[in-house]
Amino acid sequence: VSGPLPPAAVSRLPRYLRFLEGVAPSVSVVSSEEIAEGSGVSAVQVRKDLSHLGAAGTRGVGYDATSLAKRIGKALGLEDRLGVAIVGAGNLGSALANYQGFEARGFRMVAVYDVDAKRIGPLPNGLDVRHIDRLAPDATGGQISIGIIATPSEAAQFVASLMVEAGIRSILNFAPTELRVPAGVAVRRVDLATELQILSYHLAAG
Amino acid sequence: VSGPLPPAAVSRLPRYLRFLEGVAPSVSVVSSEEIAEGSGVSAVQVRKDLSHLGAAGTRGVGYDATSLAKRIGKALGLEDRLGVAIVGAGNLGSALANYQGFEARGFRMVAVYDVDAKRIGPLPNGLDVRHIDRLAPDATGGQISIGIIATPSEAAQFVASLMVEAGIRSILNFAPTELRVPAGVAVRRVDLATELQILSYHLAAG
Repeated sequence: VSGPLPPAAVSRLPRYLRFLEGVAPSVSVVSSEEIAEGSGVSAVQVRKDLSHLGAAGTRGVGYDATSLAKRIGKALGLEDRLGVAIVGAGNLGSALANYQGFEARGFRMVAVYDVDAKRIGPLPNGLDVRHIDRLAPDATGGQISIGIIATPSEAAQFVASLMVEAGIRSILNFAPTELRVPAGVAVRRVDLATELQILSYHLAAG
Repeated sequence: VSGPLPPAAVSRLPRYLRFLEGVAPSVSVVSSEEIAEGSGVSAVQVRKDLSHLGAAGTRGVGYDATSLAKRIGKALGLEDRLGVAIVGAGNLGSALANYQGFEARGFRMVAVYDVDAKRIGPLPNGLDVRHIDRLAPDATGGQISIGIIATPSEAAQFVASLMVEAGIRSILNFAPTELRVPAGVAVRRVDLATELQILSYHLAAG
């Protein structure tokens, strides 16, 4: 029931949650088959992952959708509404700042940071672009839990080190470069070319 | 040796390739342990995935890096330099159009498409923004294999249907919405909030 979840299970939880939030509140009970169908995972896998969380469905009936969503959200730490900072106010950073999904799905956007004085100021959606020197003071007291790197490759390692110094322990990296960070800092890389290569495989094998 | 690869194995191949391209041409032979280390996968898994591709390392020595990279690239269909179109010339589409990784990693960027006449014209990097009406004619003869949706959510399904009508069989969707497409069309969704939720789990689990 407890202990850390296997990484692959962790990566499936957001998909279950997305499905549950999509059907609630109009649906009160969901079966593992419905969750499986809605999230592209096998029903056996769904039951196994959920039992890791200590969520037991009622045999022949299913899971209570609302309480299951709450349990997954809690396991993912979403109740804390962690603070997120974006570094890089170019096209990508601006697109990410505009992305409504972050607030809607459990996060608190703090600000966007950039070195370029011309970019400092409020964005159309109200979020501030601040000078990068503000990152460390803004992060004190755990106000920023996750840093998103949306800079050119050349700046990514510098920004990652700034984030780590500021006490940020989780980094989402959009720059196509490997980051060196101390143990205890989690980095996820969103590699867009990888996504295209996976699609390409299906065309080639098709 | 052959037959379709399991989906999880397919998703690991781009990581192996990225590692191999990073070490070549200065390194000629790599062990499965080195590939594992460089791509965050276990060595057993690496050997299993590569044997699926029919790539056998030399016992106690390893794999020839260049020929292994070529074999993976071939399996992924990268030799064909598939054509990629982006629909949506806002911040996200512009960021994607500027992303150098696509051309460098085996793709041919065709153009960006938008409905907004004010956005039509060349981007700073030379890629064209064209009216969405040009998508279908540009796609004839298989000139566009992969479509990237970088529009607001409300437009995503409409764009996906246009892509399918134009003969595009692989779609990378950045809009936070589920797409309905006919069988035989592959969709991958890049869900940015999911990435944050996975990082959040690691913070919550401490």
